[in-house]
Amino acid sequence: MTETLAPALVWTGERFERDVLVTVGDDGRIADVARDASGVEARSLPHRALLPGLVNAHSHAFQRGLRGKGERFAEGAGSFWSWREAMYALVDAMDEDKLHDLSLRAFREMLAAGITTVGEFHYLHHDESRRGYGLDRAVLAAAKEAGIRIALLSAYYNTGSIGKRLSTSQERFRSRTPAEYWDSVDRLATNLDARTQSVGCVVHSIRAATLDDLADVHAESRRRELPFHMHVEEQRKEIADCFAAYDRAPLELLAEELEIDARFTAVHCTHTDERDMEAFLDAGGNVCLCPLTEANLGDGIADVRGMLEHGGALALGTDSNARISMVEEMRWLEYVPRLAHEVRGVCLDEDGRNANPLLHAATRGGARSLGLPVGAIEAGAHADFATLDLEADELAGCDADTLLDAWIFGGGNRSIAEVCVGGRWI
Amino acid sequence: MTETLAPALVWTGERFERDVLVTVGDDGRIADVARDASGVEARSLPHRALLPGLVNAHSHAFQRGLRGKGERFAEGAGSFWSWREAMYALVDAMDEDKLHDLSLRAFREMLAAGITTVGEFHYLHHDESRRGYGLDRAVLAAAKEAGIRIALLSAYYNTGSIGKRLSTSQERFRSRTPAEYWDSVDRLATNLDARTQSVGCVVHSIRAATLDDLADVHAESRRRELPFHMHVEEQRKEIADCFAAYDRAPLELLAEELEIDARFTAVHCTHTDERDMEAFLDAGGNVCLCPLTEANLGDGIADVRGMLEHGGALALGTDSNARISMVEEMRWLEYVPRLAHEVRGVCLDEDGRNANPLLHAATRGGARSLGLPVGAIEAGAHADFATLDLEADELAGCDADTLLDAWIFGGGNRSIAEVCVGGRWI
Repeated sequence: MTETLAPALVWTGERFERDVLVTVGDDGRIADVARDASGVEARSLPHRALLPGLVNAHSHAFQRGLRGKGERFAEGAGSFWSWREAMYALVDAMDEDKLHDLSLRAFREMLAAGITTVGEFHYLHHDESRRGYGLDRAVLAAAKEAGIRIALLSAYYNTGSIGKRLSTSQERFRSRTPAEYWDSVDRLATNLDARTQSVGCVVHSIRAATLDDLADVHAESRRRELPFHMHVEEQRKEIADCFAAYDRAPLELLAEELEIDARFTAVHCTHTDERDMEAFLDAGGNVCLCPLTEANLGDGIADVRGMLEHGGALALGTDSNARISMVEEMRWLEYVPRLAHEVRGVCLDEDGRNANPLLHAATRGGARSLGLPVGAIEAGAHADFATLDLEADELAGCDADTLLDAWIFGGGNRSIAEVCVGGRWI
Repeated sequence: MTETLAPALVWTGERFERDVLVTVGDDGRIADVARDASGVEARSLPHRALLPGLVNAHSHAFQRGLRGKGERFAEGAGSFWSWREAMYALVDAMDEDKLHDLSLRAFREMLAAGITTVGEFHYLHHDESRRGYGLDRAVLAAAKEAGIRIALLSAYYNTGSIGKRLSTSQERFRSRTPAEYWDSVDRLATNLDARTQSVGCVVHSIRAATLDDLADVHAESRRRELPFHMHVEEQRKEIADCFAAYDRAPLELLAEELEIDARFTAVHCTHTDERDMEAFLDAGGNVCLCPLTEANLGDGIADVRGMLEHGGALALGTDSNARISMVEEMRWLEYVPRLAHEVRGVCLDEDGRNANPLLHAATRGGARSLGLPVGAIEAGAHADFATLDLEADELAGCDADTLLDAWIFGGGNRSIAEVCVGGRWI
């Protein structure tokens, strides 16, 4: 059954427009976006602006279980590495039920924040037996129950740090060999809800695999035309360790060892050298930034301006899910470099618009990173939407021309009214 | 009529506690905070945690009218000074009705964000006639209509920049002499709703008054025991201009010219020299930071860590009201220095708790800055509360011990259920 929507405003890619009709087909895809409304029976949404559903390109859903924890520092300031200890304690206590519950909680919060697709960077494969992939199925089941679209980015994780064995906690993450890893991905693929679920490929980080295994897994992901994600250069120690072992920084090493393409997403790139970044972006690579998590973890200030000057394909992720708000991620993607450079207007498009590139990162950028036809309201794309409530106090006083700016710089999750995934309203 | 409240949790200053009863007297003050619940008839609030109402120590309500505007930069990046041009265009169009409507909008959003007291740094005194104080009355009327407690911090503004005449826009702000200024404050005082309204004193900034007038107005504010607020060192140009005219930075100059005390609040201090800051804090001065606005305006990164190392009395303000969320202000008060220093846990108390100093800035710190008995749930304080909804998705999974951390690092305005000002629930 097809349905035609007539919202007050529709985001057509660069602006909100009135009198646009969006028809959703019974396959859960957008069948038509039309400006001629004559004689069409449509469901009116008079107080709603229709946005593409937001795309969260990097999440670890289980880390929702750390909310409110690990924010005390009895021995003075902490770091990413002390936080990781708390995260590993959560890992040690994980079973299928707990992971299902935490994932469901995270995914429901994402939907309430306008996020309709999550790229779940998933490395917590095994329960306390350290075998089997029941935890992978728990994540997929939670996504289905919540109703969110998921790209399960299944992680290869084989070494504890460069050249080192896995720690006891890390054994929950283990893939023994690339062959075993691909077997697990193949089995996963048989468990997917084809309408809303897909898989992608991950090598966790430079510290989690040998270069041979990394190259092997990446080459196979290219052969399969899967998105490939990896944590890169979040922490200075990670870079120092990479220099000590390989005499170069992670991204430089990846450029030498792998064939970088538009399916490759480097997550974080907080401390990346500008020339390495330029080469990576020239090769088509995506960068996924996670402003709230990078701030929570004290990672440092990424060179967003430099990335954009090189035409960077940026995506956004909620990562640790310490806070789930894509509008806050967009806002602070812009605000942190404003503070660092003492200017206003860092992420600008050719017309000097600031909000558009931020929304693009949270929609099209994520779609490119995950290789999914989402993040745009156009025929053929999945019918994934988020609506803004035009009667929200936060948005009072703005018009079609200023609505996006008002929401991104002045709004919050409260302005999100409903979401729709594959034609199903939530 | 007194009423006794029995929330699930009550913030008693350093932690949430169960089984605490809060009695509100018919004078709108807290009559009693008791741990012995036997035999007391109380209104149960089973899914609520009671916080002191949040205190917004620095606001320009009318700037709510700029939301969604001034965020495009057709000629490349903008600055505070290009933003100020947009703000002045809003000023030029202001009349009593418009100011009332914008202020009402801002104050209602503040209440929805848990803010029960606003320190309204008010310099837009005159309508298009450039005479009279009708705009002051419009702000007070809007505050009363919204139901928010207000300290109207009335501003002295006499020069356009150091030694310069006012521009045409700035004539809306003019006080001709300190004597005329105090006359206007005296008239204002007769218009107050004594239950929820008070006045305070402001000299807008170093650029808005001669040193003689500044000293004169400040001395009289001390004689009257009024809070005194001033914009200090937000922009580097402001500091350079001060050096050019007076051969010293603003805060150093203030320390020489004025008697700094606990009633003095310096707003921003983004670029303050560490020794000047130490002397100012030693003298008892308050610093009001406005993380969202300072980020929006690209002011730069304040030395929050240094302020705290010198025992800084910090308050928080929503300033331009581009975004109204005190929990986001608290979160980014901590997150910006985390990013700058690449550590976790900057604003810590003696026990290593991170959330407590952030909440204190948004409650007690604001109360100290405004000289009002608010920001604490204790006998004698105004019965001003904000409640957290313990059933909010954002807070799921936390307990009394982790609730504050979960909200400050993981929550938003959505977790605020109700507010109460002077015993009146909104």
